[in-house]
Amino acid sequence: MNQKIKWLRDKIRSLDLQGMVITNPISIKYLLGIDAEGVLLITRKENFYITDGRYIEKVNSILTIDDEILVNNIKDLTIYDYEGFFTFCESVGFEEYHITYAKYKEYIQKFQINSFEETEGIIEKQRMIKDIDEIAKIKKACSITDDCFEYIRKYIKIGHTEKEIALEIERFFRLNGADGLAFDTIVASGINSSMPHAVPTDKKIEEGDPITIDMGCKYEGYCSDMTRTVFARRIPNEIKKIYDLVLKKQIHIAEEMKDGANSKILSKIVESDFKLLGYDLIHSLGHGVGLEIHEFPSMSSKYDFFLRDNMVVTNEPGIYIPGKFGVRIEDTVLITKYGSMNLTKSDKNYVVVG
Amino acid sequence: MNQKIKWLRDKIRSLDLQGMVITNPISIKYLLGIDAEGVLLITRKENFYITDGRYIEKVNSILTIDDEILVNNIKDLTIYDYEGFFTFCESVGFEEYHITYAKYKEYIQKFQINSFEETEGIIEKQRMIKDIDEIAKIKKACSITDDCFEYIRKYIKIGHTEKEIALEIERFFRLNGADGLAFDTIVASGINSSMPHAVPTDKKIEEGDPITIDMGCKYEGYCSDMTRTVFARRIPNEIKKIYDLVLKKQIHIAEEMKDGANSKILSKIVESDFKLLGYDLIHSLGHGVGLEIHEFPSMSSKYDFFLRDNMVVTNEPGIYIPGKFGVRIEDTVLITKYGSMNLTKSDKNYVVVG
Repeated sequence: MNQKIKWLRDKIRSLDLQGMVITNPISIKYLLGIDAEGVLLITRKENFYITDGRYIEKVNSILTIDDEILVNNIKDLTIYDYEGFFTFCESVGFEEYHITYAKYKEYIQKFQINSFEETEGIIEKQRMIKDIDEIAKIKKACSITDDCFEYIRKYIKIGHTEKEIALEIERFFRLNGADGLAFDTIVASGINSSMPHAVPTDKKIEEGDPITIDMGCKYEGYCSDMTRTVFARRIPNEIKKIYDLVLKKQIHIAEEMKDGANSKILSKIVESDFKLLGYDLIHSLGHGVGLEIHEFPSMSSKYDFFLRDNMVVTNEPGIYIPGKFGVRIEDTVLITKYGSMNLTKSDKNYVVVG
Repeated sequence: MNQKIKWLRDKIRSLDLQGMVITNPISIKYLLGIDAEGVLLITRKENFYITDGRYIEKVNSILTIDDEILVNNIKDLTIYDYEGFFTFCESVGFEEYHITYAKYKEYIQKFQINSFEETEGIIEKQRMIKDIDEIAKIKKACSITDDCFEYIRKYIKIGHTEKEIALEIERFFRLNGADGLAFDTIVASGINSSMPHAVPTDKKIEEGDPITIDMGCKYEGYCSDMTRTVFARRIPNEIKKIYDLVLKKQIHIAEEMKDGANSKILSKIVESDFKLLGYDLIHSLGHGVGLEIHEFPSMSSKYDFFLRDNMVVTNEPGIYIPGKFGVRIEDTVLITKYGSMNLTKSDKNYVVVG
């Protein structure tokens, strides 16, 4: 049997459940490598994947006999089939962080489940610890991202619009081995850089602009995430001061990240050091990266969380001065027993473009 | 007050609710024009939007005094603030088609809600009927899509890969007025066209290939959706036969679509006419299009649903021969009292490329 399904069956048993309904497509991609719309059922004796006509051919071309999954076309299933899946199951688990309230109610009825139980994010938590194969894919996505940064720093000229630069980044990703984008690319210049989640506009790059570029691609489904703030022709003194501070903290945190480090304490370090100089950290310090661009763990001062060997997270402090400008510097980082390793390796010294 | 919020407050009152928690970001985009992460609270006297530091500046730049929304930074709220929002509310509504089971439980606790009630998709249902402004945006997205088709039919050459063609489509969208993509572009050639949801590969276009191109963009947040199946250099006879059948049915359905038409009957017409000739309709006939690429109504033989004036839906029959090829033809369609109007208008006669 597929090792991840075997792990899940053992886990389910340890929770005193006799079955589980898996609805999150990312969980299904993680367990089976399938990109489709459907539901995975772990029952007492068998594993079923229920999908529809759009995906049957694709799914059958991916699954092998070793996966031990029976594929069902939703249109062939009767109400009796649904009622039969979990016969003799006392308790069946579900993914409470994904299933909607409406589906939760529908499934209890449809599958005639006695006791439908929360599973406390077992799959999401397992996904935090990456295996060798997953790390290799993330590394590759990060390496394509570094290549893209080298390309784009030479491409950017005064007069380009933010949109044109974002498009050129995305074009590079697609033609250089990425499956696609990990998220919508952010290119925010001048005053727009003061908004952490700015959308690229038709604003042209002008001399003296800081340009925050937040970009990432996917390689075989796994994401990269990197931000650099570069400068058009010259580096205004008031921005340089902030840049130095953000970079200093980003490097400091990279040194502190390792197996056993508490993400709340890491966040507090940045918050209080910024505060001392009159600035706020207005977003979290980082987040897990994998099949999703934002996944567990969330690195913020709200939660106590211990980093573990083989987690992949971002390290992304930033300072934003409303109505003026912003600076963010971000790497995707692999946590190990001995410290952290930046998987994105692009230049963090002052990068002057245009 | 913002007209859509006024509508929602009236609707809530008619359901005997004293408040509502709106969690779906698409609902919030629809009601307030905001693209962010946050929660909208409709309370007895006021409307609150709770978001975090990443979005505060952007949100404040979009909302006006007429919106009558109080913006809160999540980090400034205490547990007492949360408990205060719905004081004196008997029943508070929530979006059961969006909220996760975990959030549902969290909110009951956090807001100390007595009776947290399903609202039967009131906002999603309202979104089915588009106003003049929304239709104008969808029309514009469709017109950019038609321009893109004119461009791409001349661009495609034997030897191009599916990925290169998809990228060129996306590039065209971005540089010709679209905000972005409505969904990941499908370019599926030869045998790949037999999978309705194929992802573009490095396969090169060869003579005799059918090429299914399913594409759409967004204009001010609103989507377009169009599919054409074109032919590389020549039209193999076995595919021509299928193409003619799909096109005939697609045109037939367009003639039947109007205010009052039952989508189940429309779907059955296609299913049974295909069946007579030995083929299956393996996906639904269409779906609503608006702020989301797939929204209510779902046009399939599973649900009785009546089309109404000012709905926008797709009309997309297709036939797929496993391991061989597929043909799909799709338009985005505006429903009116007098009939339907294709908003995508690209050529549906045989289009030969390369």
